Amino acid sequence: MSLHEQKTVAIVGGSGYAGGEFLRLALGHPHLQVTQVTSERSAGTPVSLVHPNLRGRTNLKFRKAAELDEADILVLALPHGHAAKRLAEFEGKARVIVDLSADFRLKDPAVYQATYGEPHPTPERLDEWVYGNPELRREALRGATRIACAGCFATSVILALYPLLKLGVLLPRDIIATGLVGSSAAGASATDGSHHPERAGSLRVYKPVGHRHTAEAQQELPGHFPLHLTAISTPRVRGILTTAHAWIPDGYSDRDVWSAYREVYGQEPFIRIVKVARGIHRYPDPMLLDGTNYCDLGFEMDMDTGRVVLMSAIDNLVKGTAGHAIQSLNVALGWPETTGLEFAGLHPA
Amino acid sequence: MSLHEQKTVAIVGGSGYAGGEFLRLALGHPHLQVTQVTSERSAGTPVSLVHPNLRGRTNLKFRKAAELDEADILVLALPHGHAAKRLAEFEGKARVIVDLSADFRLKDPAVYQATYGEPHPTPERLDEWVYGNPELRREALRGATRIACAGCFATSVILALYPLLKLGVLLPRDIIATGLVGSSAAGASATDGSHHPERAGSLRVYKPVGHRHTAEAQQELPGHFPLHLTAISTPRVRGILTTAHAWIPDGYSDRDVWSAYREVYGQEPFIRIVKVARGIHRYPDPMLLDGTNYCDLGFEMDMDTGRVVLMSAIDNLVKGTAGHAIQSLNVALGWPETTGLEFAGLHPA
Amino acid sequence: MSLHEQKTVAIVGGSGYAGGEFLRLALGHPHLQVTQVTSERSAGTPVSLVHPNLRGRTNLKFRKAAELDEADILVLALPHGHAAKRLAEFEGKARVIVDLSADFRLKDPAVYQATYGEPHPTPERLDEWVYGNPELRREALRGATRIACAGCFATSVILALYPLLKLGVLLPRDIIATGLVGSSAAGASATDGSHHPERAGSLRVYKPVGHRHTAEAQQELPGHFPLHLTAISTPRVRGILTTAHAWIPDGYSDRDVWSAYREVYGQEPFIRIVKVARGIHRYPDPMLLDGTNYCDLGFEMDMDTGRVVLMSAIDNLVKGTAGHAIQSLNVALGWPETTGLEFAGLHPA
Amino acid sequence: MSLHEQKTVAIVGGSGYAGGEFLRLALGHPHLQVTQVTSERSAGTPVSLVHPNLRGRTNLKFRKAAELDEADILVLALPHGHAAKRLAEFEGKARVIVDLSADFRLKDPAVYQATYGEPHPTPERLDEWVYGNPELRREALRGATRIACAGCFATSVILALYPLLKLGVLLPRDIIATGLVGSSAAGASATDGSHHPERAGSLRVYKPVGHRHTAEAQQELPGHFPLHLTAISTPRVRGILTTAHAWIPDGYSDRDVWSAYREVYGQEPFIRIVKVARGIHRYPDPMLLDGTNYCDLGFEMDMDTGRVVLMSAIDNLVKGTAGHAIQSLNVALGWPETTGLEFAGLHPA
Repeated sequence: MSLHEQKTVAIVGGSGYAGGEFLRLALGHPHLQVTQVTSERSAGTPVSLVHPNLRGRTNLKFRKAAELDEADILVLALPHGHAAKRLAEFEGKARVIVDLSADFRLKDPAVYQATYGEPHPTPERLDEWVYGNPELRREALRGATRIACAGCFATSVILALYPLLKLGVLLPRDIIATGLVGSSAAGASATDGSHHPERAGSLRVYKPVGHRHTAEAQQELPGHFPLHLTAISTPRVRGILTTAHAWIPDGYSDRDVWSAYREVYGQEPFIRIVKVARGIHRYPDPMLLDGTNYCDLGFEMDMDTGRVVLMSAIDNLVKGTAGHAIQSLNVALGWPETTGLEFAGLHPA
Repeated sequence: MSLHEQKTVAIVGGSGYAGGEFLRLALGHPHLQVTQVTSERSAGTPVSLVHPNLRGRTNLKFRKAAELDEADILVLALPHGHAAKRLAEFEGKARVIVDLSADFRLKDPAVYQATYGEPHPTPERLDEWVYGNPELRREALRGATRIACAGCFATSVILALYPLLKLGVLLPRDIIATGLVGSSAAGASATDGSHHPERAGSLRVYKPVGHRHTAEAQQELPGHFPLHLTAISTPRVRGILTTAHAWIPDGYSDRDVWSAYREVYGQEPFIRIVKVARGIHRYPDPMLLDGTNYCDLGFEMDMDTGRVVLMSAIDNLVKGTAGHAIQSLNVALGWPETTGLEFAGLHPA
Repeated sequence: MSLHEQKTVAIVGGSGYAGGEFLRLALGHPHLQVTQVTSERSAGTPVSLVHPNLRGRTNLKFRKAAELDEADILVLALPHGHAAKRLAEFEGKARVIVDLSADFRLKDPAVYQATYGEPHPTPERLDEWVYGNPELRREALRGATRIACAGCFATSVILALYPLLKLGVLLPRDIIATGLVGSSAAGASATDGSHHPERAGSLRVYKPVGHRHTAEAQQELPGHFPLHLTAISTPRVRGILTTAHAWIPDGYSDRDVWSAYREVYGQEPFIRIVKVARGIHRYPDPMLLDGTNYCDLGFEMDMDTGRVVLMSAIDNLVKGTAGHAIQSLNVALGWPETTGLEFAGLHPA
Repeated sequence: MSLHEQKTVAIVGGSGYAGGEFLRLALGHPHLQVTQVTSERSAGTPVSLVHPNLRGRTNLKFRKAAELDEADILVLALPHGHAAKRLAEFEGKARVIVDLSADFRLKDPAVYQATYGEPHPTPERLDEWVYGNPELRREALRGATRIACAGCFATSVILALYPLLKLGVLLPRDIIATGLVGSSAAGASATDGSHHPERAGSLRVYKPVGHRHTAEAQQELPGHFPLHLTAISTPRVRGILTTAHAWIPDGYSDRDVWSAYREVYGQEPFIRIVKVARGIHRYPDPMLLDGTNYCDLGFEMDMDTGRVVLMSAIDNLVKGTAGHAIQSLNVALGWPETTGLEFAGLHPA
């Protein structure tokens, strides 16, 4: 790799929040050169009209997907189901494809069907895709040409639980995880529920049971245990705070959780353990993570009952989507893993 | 009037925020009995599905306007232009009509046309309607059967300026008023601009010049002076905070503003002068007015330049719309003016 | 009781949010006449300086507790521990005492000591106090002269679980409840953590384990089961949304939860079951409850796993504190239970 | 200058928001190496305890100012008055000093005294300091060793007005500017007014007249005209939106404003003219600028009255303080002006 290597990138479906965030990060990435962004709805208009933070940063205009030229990397930011159905169309355009949707995350076609309610269009291709979570699948991502970006809520759950399950610090009992989610997670289209007067002050349980990311988390996490997810909308725009309630074996303590996290994540550039004895910022808080690729993890234990409360905070559009995808690409293409993901986050914010 | 007198009310266009707020207030009003609420879009469904604060408070269902029966009072909460165009249809249904739209506020058809861009459908009827501002037009409202509810931004401007212009405490120079407005003022329909992620953190100048309420304020305010209005969206849902910059004659001071307000508003049940020397709540703040019919007024003077900054805070849906309408109805029908408008507001809020 | 009966009320510690909210509600209550409000810090100043929503509603000034005269009802709104330690001082002042603190909620002195870390100052008096939850303890409240107002988070948990535990619709397994709490719950004093720039965008886990309301909820709830509480601060000012995860026996379904709630709460004036199949307001949401005394309850079931997610929303200062206290007083003194608690809540809000 | 040149930086008063923001930006600046940060209150503790966004970014601990060692650059982030009074102490420590306070902005000691209510401690030294606004004073900043960082509200006003006043596009009449300001502008210390429940929903006029930045803006702006400033707190944490009402001469139009801005700011890296005919982001909005060094400018004209509404948005802590200081340092030390200030901002945000 040369210091000045650049790969061309085309973003398909670039008018949504995931595509827009990938574009923002890619514009600041020294090895990526975004040459095309598509949007059926906004074709012909400058991307900065839709993503006004990019005023003065790019002169790109949206084009239609039908006008797509070849590129080194194709990033698919389409609604659920589109990437899988139009895979042949896209495979001719680039050697490396990153899909931000849920289409290629699940490896078992039966689980896909149970989760999404219809058969997978190309079940025979599922094995070609690597799940885009470098913390768990760094080796598989090296040199990968098909990356299935991880889901945002799933990522917050997986990163909190993985070391503890892997190292046996949790009992195989029910784990209950609640995600407090910002409004950007529902996408860029206005709906009755996203209307500001109905949403600004709301704490809205939108998925008490049956969240689709359950399957994704269970696929990636070691061991067999019932996982229960609940998702609640908050007045924030970005961010997920997940609290997961799990159970430690007799005789285990704080120290075992600490050392499991240290052992597994000690070298991870984007994971921080936040558990501070004083001050006001004692645990992970998505407030501090807007725009960053961090996943902050924390925990607290109830020694009387064996319950451990795990906490996990991310920016759903960065570590939960586009940043995790960039990080995966960095691994796949052999660039330093933090390239383009250096933003520290704001305080106050 | 008997203590137990009740008038039946029909609300036309009851699925929007203005109609919903009138409904909420009317349900708590001892002399009003809401018997019908129309909504073309939601006909057949319970009103509490659209106005969930009214769960357990009413079993009313929406009906279509075509199914409207007679009532004592008809409240029109329709988009701009509908009330005037369909006036004949509505006049057969009730003796007293309250229109919450802008259709009958302006008395001069030429001003109406200049403001709304088309000729008034029934210019010959404009004089029948009384502008629904009891502070200025209490006598005209007594016994009135056609009430044109005042506009929300106009009300905040008019109530701040009226006593000072009337009593000559202001110079006839340019007055510049800025309204900081909550998102409910744009209505109950979701739009790209009302999408929570685009709106929640926004300070959006949406009407820097040419605000339609200029004509309404100038009609109601005494004297001739240039009035300039600017409107800016804030992250609040309800409320308007208006700051108006005006100019006092040489030799005038704080005391003259105080005494003008006292002279004109001394007996007003819904106007409070807020100008406190200590503590954190020194001036009017819409935060304290959600759900109330108050208009809080304050001011501060720059003796070096003769500039006076007038401040005016209201809940746009109550004092700015439905509450002002109820207050006008109370005057028109001879009930105590505060009936049904007793809510004090919350703190903290 | 005469229609015009009035009892005098003295509020001790009236500059905080709980005392202020009691004052607001009492000023609108036809049978209560607030004659005294104390505040050591603000003695001599008008109460409306501290509670600016009450401008124009009362001319009361704060006095010191040492200047307290007799009244029919004494409402104690003091920090934890004060009411119990100064009980003798207060008992001479009024026949009926309502304590808004935690001092007299727990009946078992050992549980009190384990929860609050010190022995109870007057353990022999605990039995005289009735827990202020009319839904569970209506009969005991009739004629009561010592009312220990229930805790806010505890109330949201208790009301969601009580009918299901009473009627055996839940298994005696771990119940995990998460409270999403507004900033007013931490009181009226500014702290580093309440500083707006640090708090406005925050989702802050402030009590992952060991919440003191656990003991209160377990005292009031039937049966033996492990109860785990977690509390998280949200950007809201008022309100608690509690989601509780519990487990139903084999063969039970939605219908059993519905009928348990109906059987126990069918006649309750302040409990609404919110579980709607369409629209955007499908479950309880504290957004709709600011200023109201409602507790909205909802639920959803995961038939695959037997998990039921119970949802409970209240205004922490009304149903969670002052409103529940007024409702308890209404029962104790024989007035209609909803007196003074009629506010429906706002939409939008 | 070598590509790898690095200057050491010491930040005095680094626990506040201005100092913390300078630290964040400096940590990402290739030519700055922060070696010391002082805080009397937090001496001995890691800076990331106070600025939790910097966890994992720096191991620096706060020291006391008394322990300050020499550095190439000293950044003073102290409360008003400290820098001037302790100037001798600081001048021994570094060749280049940047002061983020108001101490050295005003050149006329009489104006300083009139504005700040006391005589300047070192009036003879005022001329040594260059006002830190590269858009107006780029040449003076080259090689400067004393930089007085511009005030945040002043910057938003100055940048909006400067080209128009310079090129005669505005009449010398009263200009009225209103700043809508986030809560971070009041600093990092909790106060009664910053308590979240009192502030979260507030629109609080905190400086209707007499704002201290008036003198600063008038010093920097060409021509003689009365300037009136009003400042209002909004629920945002960061950001200022300024709307200024000014007056154009007869015969002038939109085009003249456009060309004045283009002529003066055509090459400015951090100024964008935002005036878009469609979409929802038509004018400057601080929502889009958190963390960025942009000043977005827009305008709209009322041809009937000659009023032009100028709009200006910045992040008060970046373009309004620390970013503007970094930009000034870049000019002073001969580095590319955008170094370390590349963050594009988020959307949605």
